[in-house]
Amino acid sequence: MVKARKYVANKDFQGVPKREDFDLVEYELPPLKEGEFLVKAEWISVDPYLRFLNSKIPAPYDQFGFQIGTVQESRNPSYPVGTQVVTHEGWCDYSNAKETDDPLAKVYKLPDLQGLPTELALGVIGMPGVTAYFGFLEICQPKAGETVVVTGAAGAVGSVVGQIAKIKGCRVIGLAGSDDKVQWLEKDLGFDKAINYKTADIHKALAEAAPNGIDCYFDNVGGEISSIIIGKMNQYGRVAACGSISAYNEDPTKMPKATVLQPTIILKELKIEGFHVSRWSQPKDRWPEAFSDLVQWIKNGQIEVRSHVTEGFDNIYDAFIGMLAGENTGKAVVKI
Amino acid sequence: MVKARKYVANKDFQGVPKREDFDLVEYELPPLKEGEFLVKAEWISVDPYLRFLNSKIPAPYDQFGFQIGTVQESRNPSYPVGTQVVTHEGWCDYSNAKETDDPLAKVYKLPDLQGLPTELALGVIGMPGVTAYFGFLEICQPKAGETVVVTGAAGAVGSVVGQIAKIKGCRVIGLAGSDDKVQWLEKDLGFDKAINYKTADIHKALAEAAPNGIDCYFDNVGGEISSIIIGKMNQYGRVAACGSISAYNEDPTKMPKATVLQPTIILKELKIEGFHVSRWSQPKDRWPEAFSDLVQWIKNGQIEVRSHVTEGFDNIYDAFIGMLAGENTGKAVVKI
Repeated sequence: MVKARKYVANKDFQGVPKREDFDLVEYELPPLKEGEFLVKAEWISVDPYLRFLNSKIPAPYDQFGFQIGTVQESRNPSYPVGTQVVTHEGWCDYSNAKETDDPLAKVYKLPDLQGLPTELALGVIGMPGVTAYFGFLEICQPKAGETVVVTGAAGAVGSVVGQIAKIKGCRVIGLAGSDDKVQWLEKDLGFDKAINYKTADIHKALAEAAPNGIDCYFDNVGGEISSIIIGKMNQYGRVAACGSISAYNEDPTKMPKATVLQPTIILKELKIEGFHVSRWSQPKDRWPEAFSDLVQWIKNGQIEVRSHVTEGFDNIYDAFIGMLAGENTGKAVVKI
Repeated sequence: MVKARKYVANKDFQGVPKREDFDLVEYELPPLKEGEFLVKAEWISVDPYLRFLNSKIPAPYDQFGFQIGTVQESRNPSYPVGTQVVTHEGWCDYSNAKETDDPLAKVYKLPDLQGLPTELALGVIGMPGVTAYFGFLEICQPKAGETVVVTGAAGAVGSVVGQIAKIKGCRVIGLAGSDDKVQWLEKDLGFDKAINYKTADIHKALAEAAPNGIDCYFDNVGGEISSIIIGKMNQYGRVAACGSISAYNEDPTKMPKATVLQPTIILKELKIEGFHVSRWSQPKDRWPEAFSDLVQWIKNGQIEVRSHVTEGFDNIYDAFIGMLAGENTGKAVVKI
């Protein structure tokens, strides 16, 4: 028998999730069934969608999320002992995993990272990177020379979107929430312009940074900032609606208001499309396409990566809250 | 020389357009140039986009809009004297018209109405009908059995959208602003349900009328009503953003606010697309495709039409204001 620990979300969060909204449960894992394998977690991911989905899923539930681990015991010949895997088993130190058809709860072998750090499989070479890759390329359909705006630009997804946009020959403007992030985006990642949305006059800063208007907008935040950006878009502009973190801690029955979008959507014939990264899992699993390009771009120096590492299983909650508050630059992960 | 009269919009409207925002100008038309033909107006159209575009075009300008007339003199062999034409010459009694590449300012011969009333060429068999036809079929991509909601349902575009949706086997719910309109939609046009948005609890009424959620939304109004409707859409729902009449009389520098859309857009992976009907004019003029189906549907009794007729060139302003205030059921037109 294996003793395991897991976080259970025990209620619908009110506003910012509290420590007592999670129970840390110790329990004994049942014996492996045919097809299952025992995974010991090494890296655990904290991402904005964990907050978002809390208002959509009835509590209590085991806190899900991506993690990287190594197979300790196996009743699945495809996953022998020692295999490194990515699962969606979440905030637990040991789990009995198995392959699944659920497009969200993906389980797969660690991609070939070509010597890059393992934790990138939760970031650029994981779900956030795939989100950036397909969400930007397939929904925004960027063309060289176009102007791209990305919000949450210093986050796990946004930082990759902006760099892919540069690779594709676009002018890239990022919005982020601190001067340090702004500096990282402009100096290290090669954004043409980064704007601290907490201190800048966004209207003015965007008008200066995007004198020819905005063609593509990769939206991680929603709300009033998105209304301002969308109001400056060009004819036939495309918006990939990926996240709305500005509203995640709001009461879902009383969502905030923002300047109406319809007059601009119509005048400029804009297309706004929401998506989940899971749409590129089925019917064909296209994630490996993204992994292959992303690994190459990192090795070429075209994509710069940064992980924001918190240490220790007992600190996952703090890492999660810090990420929701924007404390991370780059991908927030927890080393177990 | 021909004496002509025209309305000139002399300023940017503040709120509801006022009578004094227009000058009625008498002048002499210049002689016809090669390719031009003199048109005497018989029917003039008033439409919501005339209000919308006022905030986008610097005044003064001759008030544009569709009209039906007959050629009186001609220097264009394709348009001999006596030809009935549709032009975008607007609120004038005589004009020197010519063919143009401008996709909005279309000039074309009256379609074959197969004996239907001439003024329908400003309505179901004109720009509004084409807007409904392509906007709904191409952007909403409706499937039989799906639930469709249309706002401005008793207007020139909305009333056609709902009837096309019925022809395509959808369940159709319309929102309109009076009990008379609601009755017309349900009794005469065959809508499955119509809701008076001014008196109903929209949340409750929609929940009852669309127990399986909403798949397609044809939006003529924008604003908070649209936020409510979009909040009830199903996975992969499609929104055709055609009009935002709720905001047309607002100060364009101080647009109203409405409940944010992004959380639902993302969760349900919705697609919202704004469009102008002119996109189906170029590179290929596809309006005749729509005319052909629409004439047939009217003759089959599958589309019921109603025109809201104001008489007299001097009353165009009143017809326009009445239409903006929702006084019309069906297409608002002026008989000269």
